[in-house]
Amino acid sequence: MEKFTRNKRVVAITKILLESPNKILGLNRFSELLNAAKSTISEDIVVVREVLEKLKMGRVETIAGVAGGIKYIPQSGEEEKKDFALEICRQLSDDGRVIPGNIIYMTDLMYNPKIISKAGVMLSSCFQGKEVNYVITVETKGIPLAYEVARNLGVQLVIARRDSQVTEGPTVTINYVSGSNGRLQQMSLSKKSMKPSSKCIFIDDFMKGGGTAIGIKDLLKEFDSELVGIGVLVDNKQIEKKLIDEYVSIVELKAVDKSAIIGIQPSKIFS
Amino acid sequence: MEKFTRNKRVVAITKILLESPNKILGLNRFSELLNAAKSTISEDIVVVREVLEKLKMGRVETIAGVAGGIKYIPQSGEEEKKDFALEICRQLSDDGRVIPGNIIYMTDLMYNPKIISKAGVMLSSCFQGKEVNYVITVETKGIPLAYEVARNLGVQLVIARRDSQVTEGPTVTINYVSGSNGRLQQMSLSKKSMKPSSKCIFIDDFMKGGGTAIGIKDLLKEFDSELVGIGVLVDNKQIEKKLIDEYVSIVELKAVDKSAIIGIQPSKIFS
Repeated sequence: MEKFTRNKRVVAITKILLESPNKILGLNRFSELLNAAKSTISEDIVVVREVLEKLKMGRVETIAGVAGGIKYIPQSGEEEKKDFALEICRQLSDDGRVIPGNIIYMTDLMYNPKIISKAGVMLSSCFQGKEVNYVITVETKGIPLAYEVARNLGVQLVIARRDSQVTEGPTVTINYVSGSNGRLQQMSLSKKSMKPSSKCIFIDDFMKGGGTAIGIKDLLKEFDSELVGIGVLVDNKQIEKKLIDEYVSIVELKAVDKSAIIGIQPSKIFS
Repeated sequence: MEKFTRNKRVVAITKILLESPNKILGLNRFSELLNAAKSTISEDIVVVREVLEKLKMGRVETIAGVAGGIKYIPQSGEEEKKDFALEICRQLSDDGRVIPGNIIYMTDLMYNPKIISKAGVMLSSCFQGKEVNYVITVETKGIPLAYEVARNLGVQLVIARRDSQVTEGPTVTINYVSGSNGRLQQMSLSKKSMKPSSKCIFIDDFMKGGGTAIGIKDLLKEFDSELVGIGVLVDNKQIEKKLIDEYVSIVELKAVDKSAIIGIQPSKIFS
């Protein structure tokens, strides 16, 4: 079997680590694939760790013990986060985005893999260390972002539906009141989708009054589970009184009127 | 500014390439970040290319010219694809998945980043070279998979909705007939979501009669755009007469009854 040089081994190790964020990978796997001793792989990992840290591209942790190995934790540098938040502001500041009802059209951003993959890393790093079991969202616009946060945290995604579906088996349905317009809404989640006593993060595109977040909290109670964090791309600051207070956002929106978007800026933690 | 050794440069180059699949990246970017001459970076790229090809982890192409650079094309090896398709079969063959209506519960797989990221690479590689502009899906279950295919092809995701939404601006709505039960259904797409004369790939979780695919085809006509490929995770072979004939699937389902799933196997191209 072919031997690889260190140059080549570190490429393969980097690829495998990046594809399994927040998962513990045993050194055996690398050792077998690359036909190298575990001590050699350990030295390779030092190289990978050093350059990723130096360039603020993420952390590589070593986990000791029988079930030990290494774990890649996606992260971005402070400058990169700030630049990204500013770029989102720039893109959202376009007049052409205001649609009837003083709503900002932002579906293109929410479905743009280039943007969502970066936003996913940024939001996931806010919940690192919370021992999250699931990332939850309500269909539809927040799904790609929630997926990316789940992928980066190495956990399963769960999606609450507006209607219960035949393909979901038995479901739990709750009613909740929209925080912005007071209207009664519904969401459903399959009984099969979550184990009890789980810790969940709620991810969405937009935070208005916080009604949906309260809905998610109530829904999770039905699964004997807990909401331990909330993250959104855009926080609408026009609604000052929110139903919840703890959440993170990437940008903040101050005002929208028919002709223009006024005051969109990076959120405090990313500025 | 610090200089990096080749060992370290190849780690950084690998990370950047993997994060922008199917995008042309100029060598300047690497040269500046790593404080190295372009000729040095070119040699680094040879190392990255060789090991990724050797281990069947993807291809690195060089694009000549002013707008040139390098492009990473995600791929998986034949063995890996086969193992993955078999693993999906194994997971779906569980009796506990059969829910009333002889439906297989597969939401957990569709929302599992570990599975969907691999399936996304496999399906995207079937459409490589088709010069795709968008990946389209209909809400909800296929969204993570469609997102991964879009990410791997380096294009925008587009999601048709069941109802038109206020947040989408002007929409085009079409009616279509479900291929399996003949019922009339609706889907809507924002006028803002797609440029005319685009080539699109339709990605979904499940192929039954092909009615949804016909619906997507009709919807795309309204955008003067074209459907150039279809990919699904599971092809339901119980319905023999499909409304469409060209599509790729990862696994094929032969029969389901109340107590068990009979005959699920990798699709021909992955076996």
